[in-house]
Amino acid sequence: MSIAAFLLALIAIFVAAKVFGTLAERIGQPAVLGELIGGVLVGTSGLRFVSANDTTIHLLSELGVILLLFLIGLETDLKKLLSVGGSATLVALGGVALPFAGGTAVAMLLGYSSMVAIFLGASLTATSVGITARVLSDLGHLHDDEAQVILGAAVVDDIIGLVLLTLVSTFAEGGVLTAFSIGRVIVIAFGFVIAAILIGSYLAPVLIRVIERIDVARGIFFTSMLFAFFLAYLAQRAGSAVIIGSFAAGLVLARTQKAEQIASEIHDIAQFFIPIFFVVVGAAVDLRALNPFQAATRPYLLLGLLLAAVGIAGKLLAGFAALRRGLKRILIGVGMMPRGEVGLIFAQIGLSAKLLNPGLYSAVALMVILTTLVTPPSLRLLLERRERLLEPREPCDLVVDAPIDGERRRSERRQAVEKTP
Amino acid sequence: MSIAAFLLALIAIFVAAKVFGTLAERIGQPAVLGELIGGVLVGTSGLRFVSANDTTIHLLSELGVILLLFLIGLETDLKKLLSVGGSATLVALGGVALPFAGGTAVAMLLGYSSMVAIFLGASLTATSVGITARVLSDLGHLHDDEAQVILGAAVVDDIIGLVLLTLVSTFAEGGVLTAFSIGRVIVIAFGFVIAAILIGSYLAPVLIRVIERIDVARGIFFTSMLFAFFLAYLAQRAGSAVIIGSFAAGLVLARTQKAEQIASEIHDIAQFFIPIFFVVVGAAVDLRALNPFQAATRPYLLLGLLLAAVGIAGKLLAGFAALRRGLKRILIGVGMMPRGEVGLIFAQIGLSAKLLNPGLYSAVALMVILTTLVTPPSLRLLLERRERLLEPREPCDLVVDAPIDGERRRSERRQAVEKTP
Repeated sequence: MSIAAFLLALIAIFVAAKVFGTLAERIGQPAVLGELIGGVLVGTSGLRFVSANDTTIHLLSELGVILLLFLIGLETDLKKLLSVGGSATLVALGGVALPFAGGTAVAMLLGYSSMVAIFLGASLTATSVGITARVLSDLGHLHDDEAQVILGAAVVDDIIGLVLLTLVSTFAEGGVLTAFSIGRVIVIAFGFVIAAILIGSYLAPVLIRVIERIDVARGIFFTSMLFAFFLAYLAQRAGSAVIIGSFAAGLVLARTQKAEQIASEIHDIAQFFIPIFFVVVGAAVDLRALNPFQAATRPYLLLGLLLAAVGIAGKLLAGFAALRRGLKRILIGVGMMPRGEVGLIFAQIGLSAKLLNPGLYSAVALMVILTTLVTPPSLRLLLERRERLLEPREPCDLVVDAPIDGERRRSERRQAVEKTP
Repeated sequence: MSIAAFLLALIAIFVAAKVFGTLAERIGQPAVLGELIGGVLVGTSGLRFVSANDTTIHLLSELGVILLLFLIGLETDLKKLLSVGGSATLVALGGVALPFAGGTAVAMLLGYSSMVAIFLGASLTATSVGITARVLSDLGHLHDDEAQVILGAAVVDDIIGLVLLTLVSTFAEGGVLTAFSIGRVIVIAFGFVIAAILIGSYLAPVLIRVIERIDVARGIFFTSMLFAFFLAYLAQRAGSAVIIGSFAAGLVLARTQKAEQIASEIHDIAQFFIPIFFVVVGAAVDLRALNPFQAATRPYLLLGLLLAAVGIAGKLLAGFAALRRGLKRILIGVGMMPRGEVGLIFAQIGLSAKLLNPGLYSAVALMVILTTLVTPPSLRLLLERRERLLEPREPCDLVVDAPIDGERRRSERRQAVEKTP
């Protein structure tokens, strides 16, 4: 790849991300949806400026998702999550089991091999924490009890999704799944996070104090970024996924006094890389593989629609597994609906393992786009209906909403500073 | 390149940049020198975590130098520069002609072909604006008359250096240099900057007003970055260099009301990519090619030392071409000494065109390291001696010193904001 082609790809990525992200927001959708659609338009199905198969572009998009999960980890309050732990765990388990079983069944009924069917079912399991958190925050409900259950369940089912991913990949590569190998994967995925939190909680404050004492320029920024990269590297080497590593890094640093400063300092660089991930995901979608007017592609379109339906129904049902009294369970189910990173990572790994063809990949991508598209208006409808029964509330926004609102606030803050002499 | 290898390379790059950059500062050297040396240690000559030949790493380092010249363009005040234009132009012309002639002569005397000798001579021409500006700013003398002459001359000789680069490359590829082809290259290099400034000065404020009106999240950040990438792309396509394009983009935006905001918003992302450039430059140095104890490599070491000597002497003499009365001409010469980006770009292009072997490349890198190393203590000595004769002055610092001081100030500013409720 030449420097000219690289610059052109970057220009296409950021123009697509900003133009369609902004348009999506204008019509009340999350920006991430616009980024996906913008990606479709500059990628394989459209102008072909961006190739998801190019090594450099792929690696930059990986940095994007690593930084996204690092930020989400940074914003996650473990104690708050654990307080709704029972409900969250049940919702997570239901939200994994039901779409997994439903998706596998649908794919097998359509005549796909059991291995492909299991892969497609597994791609339905993980709620997109990023999308969920951003929608809740945009609508000003991130501190509701239902929101805490959703976040907790999303984190747990993200990890379960990655366990499934490892198991399914092993299975796909012809490996035998023994009780030992399954146990090993589960221990690594959850164990990595638990060990990182336990060890890191002691080490991180020491590290931060050392950095502050030796006064390296932007020490906090570089140290926390490198910490995230290092845990991502370790997780990958340990047989888990890079995003589990960076998420664990975020959880550890979230418990230090510098969590807010780290989130704010990582923000600019995350904002550069995160849209690359979503645009590249869109760029890999091959719309011709979903053409409803061709006999050869019609099955993939049908499959995508059915997967989306099963995915939505499964999460809605899982919402009713929430134990605690007084929760609006349909709200939890709707909040769990959007699929994103992990589902697409499934599809991408399936694609590169030659298990999924471009048609099946695009069916999964269609499912992701549909489940993401349907969530914000549904959530708004439910919340507005409830709000009419309750007192009016101020919208609250956290740093979780970093990609859009956080940056606006921050830029305003910065401008305010520059005005003061 | 796998994601694990990529993460490891990034970790090595940033650890090397921060550790050795900080160490360099502690012993009174510019951080960039530490980054070069850190690069040597993690690159070809050392731990081999970073390969300058890897496409992804190379493209990221190119983004670094594009952003560096964009920032330098953003900080450049055309009017101020033009007021010392006569002296600056003479110093630039002398500072290009003398080292070029001297370097070519030395290389030919050592028995190299005239083509290689011309390439080596040309690599001595361009002063590193980045290094000069940072050193002057660190020492608090960026607004002195001598500093303005140095900056103006550095900008002009950077462009002349690129013209030479294009001519020498054409020559190297067996092309014939006619009056027409030479004129064309000169017109493109200077014409690009002039046209970009003339057209851009009308368009940029309009563009900024449009962006503000449609209120895209972080619109200024993305628009200015894409503007720099786009002009870099155009410059490359027009037969000039990417850094001429991004420098022109910076000059244009410097004349808008948003220049300071742009510099501040681009800062974080620049800070991520710029060290990659300097570390990768160091990583490409093959120290074994400079081994003084081997007969085969001794000539390259000797050549590097001679090139450094000629490079220093040429710039010192050029300083005396400054017209204006009352200037301390030795100070101007010393300020022009450091070589950096452009010299190394020469060497890298020579290397990839198979015109320079790794030994010759390392000789140029040695020249860059030596001229950079010798400047800060010499400048400090001269300035301190003069200061004893004058009234005491407050150190002034501009945004030019972004990579280190700017970021500290900014982080302090940010912390101050976060403290206010």
